[in-house]
Amino acid sequence: MLLAISKEELIGRQKKLMEKLSANELDCAILFSVVDIFYLTGFHFHPTERPIGFFIDPQQKTHLFVPALEHEHAEEFASVDHVHSYPEYPGLRHPMEYLKDALVEANFSGKRVGFDAEGYGSSMGYRGQKVRQFLEAKDFTSIYGWVEEMRVIKSAAEIELIKESCRWGNLAHRLLQKYSKPGLSEIEITSKASTEATMAMIETLGADYKPHGNTAYAIFRGQVGPMSAFPHAVTQNLVLKKGDTLVTGAAADVWGYHSELERTMFVQEANEEQEKYFSYMVQAQDIAFAHIKPGKPMSYVEEAVQAFFKENGISHLTSHHTGHAIGLLGHEAPFFDLGDHTIMQPGMVMTVEPGIYVRGLGGFRHSDTVLVTENGMEMLTYYPRDLGSMICV
Amino acid sequence: MLLAISKEELIGRQKKLMEKLSANELDCAILFSVVDIFYLTGFHFHPTERPIGFFIDPQQKTHLFVPALEHEHAEEFASVDHVHSYPEYPGLRHPMEYLKDALVEANFSGKRVGFDAEGYGSSMGYRGQKVRQFLEAKDFTSIYGWVEEMRVIKSAAEIELIKESCRWGNLAHRLLQKYSKPGLSEIEITSKASTEATMAMIETLGADYKPHGNTAYAIFRGQVGPMSAFPHAVTQNLVLKKGDTLVTGAAADVWGYHSELERTMFVQEANEEQEKYFSYMVQAQDIAFAHIKPGKPMSYVEEAVQAFFKENGISHLTSHHTGHAIGLLGHEAPFFDLGDHTIMQPGMVMTVEPGIYVRGLGGFRHSDTVLVTENGMEMLTYYPRDLGSMICV
Repeated sequence: MLLAISKEELIGRQKKLMEKLSANELDCAILFSVVDIFYLTGFHFHPTERPIGFFIDPQQKTHLFVPALEHEHAEEFASVDHVHSYPEYPGLRHPMEYLKDALVEANFSGKRVGFDAEGYGSSMGYRGQKVRQFLEAKDFTSIYGWVEEMRVIKSAAEIELIKESCRWGNLAHRLLQKYSKPGLSEIEITSKASTEATMAMIETLGADYKPHGNTAYAIFRGQVGPMSAFPHAVTQNLVLKKGDTLVTGAAADVWGYHSELERTMFVQEANEEQEKYFSYMVQAQDIAFAHIKPGKPMSYVEEAVQAFFKENGISHLTSHHTGHAIGLLGHEAPFFDLGDHTIMQPGMVMTVEPGIYVRGLGGFRHSDTVLVTENGMEMLTYYPRDLGSMICV
Repeated sequence: MLLAISKEELIGRQKKLMEKLSANELDCAILFSVVDIFYLTGFHFHPTERPIGFFIDPQQKTHLFVPALEHEHAEEFASVDHVHSYPEYPGLRHPMEYLKDALVEANFSGKRVGFDAEGYGSSMGYRGQKVRQFLEAKDFTSIYGWVEEMRVIKSAAEIELIKESCRWGNLAHRLLQKYSKPGLSEIEITSKASTEATMAMIETLGADYKPHGNTAYAIFRGQVGPMSAFPHAVTQNLVLKKGDTLVTGAAADVWGYHSELERTMFVQEANEEQEKYFSYMVQAQDIAFAHIKPGKPMSYVEEAVQAFFKENGISHLTSHHTGHAIGLLGHEAPFFDLGDHTIMQPGMVMTVEPGIYVRGLGGFRHSDTVLVTENGMEMLTYYPRDLGSMICV
């Protein structure tokens, strides 16, 4: 059972980035993106006021730059050649002065330097100089988005981890549905389902399972009854009532990899109006599935879904695109959107989640996670989608 | 029971920002910081690829700029004069073009504009123009950090919400301690304690409780046994053994406000070495408490703690500063750090958490949340701190 990305795969990612740097005549690079650093090194940490960076020197050695409190943690868990650290932020000497020393020592001076951001950024009280203020390079080139682009096509191992995530999201959702009864709070149901699914998950996967994120969970995030008409509501501590429309979400992070399973359910019964919009939504999702074809642009899927909504006179009840890529982040580019013409390719993992929102009645959205294949797509989530299965009894 | 910041207080925050803009001869301003937008408007949302902004026009009207899927949600929950929205990101027309229209309509052209960032930033696949690329202002001035600074001194209502957070963090921690037994996984203990505390919390607080964050939880985040020597470890799915050192964390978000309670505990027994470092740590925390005095700089606390560590020859076992401010974010400026000379003032809420880390043995850190008062400090967390209370039996 695969539960982690191997060190070899991490090193391969680093080599691929080095090749792109060379192809663009860059000698070296520095990155500050937390998710990209995890992707390249396997080092998971809690970002705070304390700056962290990853750099590749002109000799193609890799370095992690961390606060002292992460030094041994990085030595043990990060796939890099060198770990550097500084005492503390802000400290008597600013961390960026230590970073300058490390970059100069690694021969960055006078070189062509790539960077993904002007400097470390954090909303947690950090202030500091930009790299170009303290490093004398030959020139600086933004490589913002390069690693993000590498992350778009998933490897076989990444797909395995996402499938593992789907499995436990599925269990959490099963339990959520089982516990969804009138009179219970969304938080109570969520807590109970998430805890039980998590317990089963850790008993099954054992000590090798590292979440690097959340263990199994299933949630409503406020999409209960009329509130479900807000596509991105937040947890409201609502109590379920008979006839409520519910929009759910369930997943589990496996070594940082996400999946997305969302369902529209009804407490004990659905009326005709609920059934009508539910039916439109399922049809729209089927249309999206049918239009996922490698070689076609992302917009092809969205155009088909929107044409269907228009034909049925319900475009005014829709307010978001059909889906997004997913991986180390819950939302990633590209998007099933009218304005996104990225070509679909095998190995992309996407959510498919057209939504209909009726003020006063509720929201109607299933979300499934799918893999773009050579011929079309493979469903990675596997929960029932039909109305009969969606009544919480 | 206070469970939210009132609309009046939110409007007061907006007025305060407007006054500072005027005092700095700025006509208007635009902000993209998610936490600052919540602080000013009470609008909690899930940040994604879709840009969100808040702006104050030259007539001192407030505006929220959101994607279509958040429009009604914002109309209902945000304390602003106007809500604007755009269809989707990236869309056939980019959201920044809609933002330009909204800013021009609100008379930003030719004005002196303050902004907290060059544009919307997100790691979730967003790309877009900077404000100065599409808006013809008289000039642009960075107001980065202005709202963060307003957030430093907590109001009476904010302190009440943080106290409410401490109460439920305390319960979650009690349960975590009760369930910490040899042979159980950190995830199992965490899930059980968090779920039970959450249930008690929502039963007690009722429907008016809105977490805007996490309900009650207690965690180890991998700080179990020798792994506890990594100050910021991540959840490892470790199994507790007799004699393990544990470093915990517990809290509950109340309308977005955080608190921090951390304890060093021992599974069934502690040996002499563990007792020794535990004792140093508690003494260091006592020293920190005694040095919290309005009018003194933050560094005054850190200097006293570090002097104590040095006297006892254990400076090499320490790797981070003594604490940080806390509020809408888990870590905020200022810091109890040698390099932070911010003056302590009544109304600041800080964590106090000097730590000692012994490779192979474990980590030793209590964290308490305290309020700086007119005379010194008030403890907001209230869990026992002594060795006898820290043995999980």
